[in-house]
Amino acid sequence: MKKKSIDVCFSPALFHLYDASESIVVVIDVLRATSSICIAFEHGVRSIVPVSKVEESSAYRAKGYLVGAERKGEMVEGFDLGNSPFSYMDPKVKDRDIALTTTNGTQAIAIARNAFQIAIGSFLNQDALCNWLKQQNRNVILLCSGWKNSFNFEDTLFAGAVVHKLLDSFELTDHRDSALAAMQLYHLAKDDLYGFLEQSSHRKRLEKLQIEDDIVFCLTPNQTDCIPVMVGDAIYNLNVLQSM
Amino acid sequence: MKKKSIDVCFSPALFHLYDASESIVVVIDVLRATSSICIAFEHGVRSIVPVSKVEESSAYRAKGYLVGAERKGEMVEGFDLGNSPFSYMDPKVKDRDIALTTTNGTQAIAIARNAFQIAIGSFLNQDALCNWLKQQNRNVILLCSGWKNSFNFEDTLFAGAVVHKLLDSFELTDHRDSALAAMQLYHLAKDDLYGFLEQSSHRKRLEKLQIEDDIVFCLTPNQTDCIPVMVGDAIYNLNVLQSM
Repeated sequence: MKKKSIDVCFSPALFHLYDASESIVVVIDVLRATSSICIAFEHGVRSIVPVSKVEESSAYRAKGYLVGAERKGEMVEGFDLGNSPFSYMDPKVKDRDIALTTTNGTQAIAIARNAFQIAIGSFLNQDALCNWLKQQNRNVILLCSGWKNSFNFEDTLFAGAVVHKLLDSFELTDHRDSALAAMQLYHLAKDDLYGFLEQSSHRKRLEKLQIEDDIVFCLTPNQTDCIPVMVGDAIYNLNVLQSM
Repeated sequence: MKKKSIDVCFSPALFHLYDASESIVVVIDVLRATSSICIAFEHGVRSIVPVSKVEESSAYRAKGYLVGAERKGEMVEGFDLGNSPFSYMDPKVKDRDIALTTTNGTQAIAIARNAFQIAIGSFLNQDALCNWLKQQNRNVILLCSGWKNSFNFEDTLFAGAVVHKLLDSFELTDHRDSALAAMQLYHLAKDDLYGFLEQSSHRKRLEKLQIEDDIVFCLTPNQTDCIPVMVGDAIYNLNVLQSM
């Protein structure tokens, strides 16, 4: 059987170069949207609707949703939840629906809407995600959310970790240089991800917010087996969907 | 004095994220447009007009220009010159004006037209370029041409070499992750650039064309002191302009 392909896209602004129609697109926003989404499902959230604008969330709140919003790294005033994975480790989120908007992550999800399927990836669900991807017999595109469309390290390093784990089972395409670069950077960084990111732009932005604990947690692999996937307009926990 | 900034842009499709109006933009297309441009000036070419379409070249030919064109790595039939640096090491180019169109390089030059100044970089003029950039007291953006807007290794590695040489004299910006990634990849590759590119997409494309000699040459630093710069619609040898 011909191997399926694996690609890395460094920015939503480059996503139009990839053919996603037959691919699973894994959206990656390690600090912190996709990490929080993974951990939210681990703590029993029922669904998460990604919304692009803070204002749209109000309509969801009126329908009984919890609302989460982050802009420039901080929780938006008057919202129930921010972008810290710790804020989703709360019994109040169990069985709830959440409307979430973040600077980069939810925008990347929006841009991937033409994909065959959208999944959510982070170090927190790394191995579960990789094992699932291996079983799907689909091309895979790892879409790094970046920072306002700029290349960033943390998303690239996670993409590199996935390429490292899947390269034997998949083949590279014309976009191979991004996949190989991500994997090489991951190899450089993997023994001390936190230290490697010391000089990164996002770490510097987040320094002001004093969320070192968030960062350490978001860089810790395999805290959950949840695989969040888009179904219609919302993200659900695939493990729950499959047990229904 | 406040240090000027140095940035790396991995693709012309990301260039709109950078403020180029006060910056020197170094256009990089190592395999092979900007390498050929550097070596053309070393061999006495007077000027090179980058044109976007093969068809536009005819008008220049009528005006006495030599015409060079490459598409998908090959010289276009009926043209005087291709994209191999060796084709510009010919006495026939001395004192001539050339109209040149290539798949990626001339497109990147076109997209950088809002820059304060455009310069042409390649391993072939590496140290001369770096020394000149240090003296300009301007922000610098290293623009990788990539392959049809995709990230590529060879341009990134040269950008990384320049960051490595200039980092002490410049400062990083919000786009720092691309600059640091380029530099880290350069450190991985620098002892055997040719071997490192073995798996790269462009090497694989060029394999079919049997131009290994071109590639080895294009990866050899410091074959010329020429610094090609845009003045109006054409590229000139800065060293010649300054001696006039």
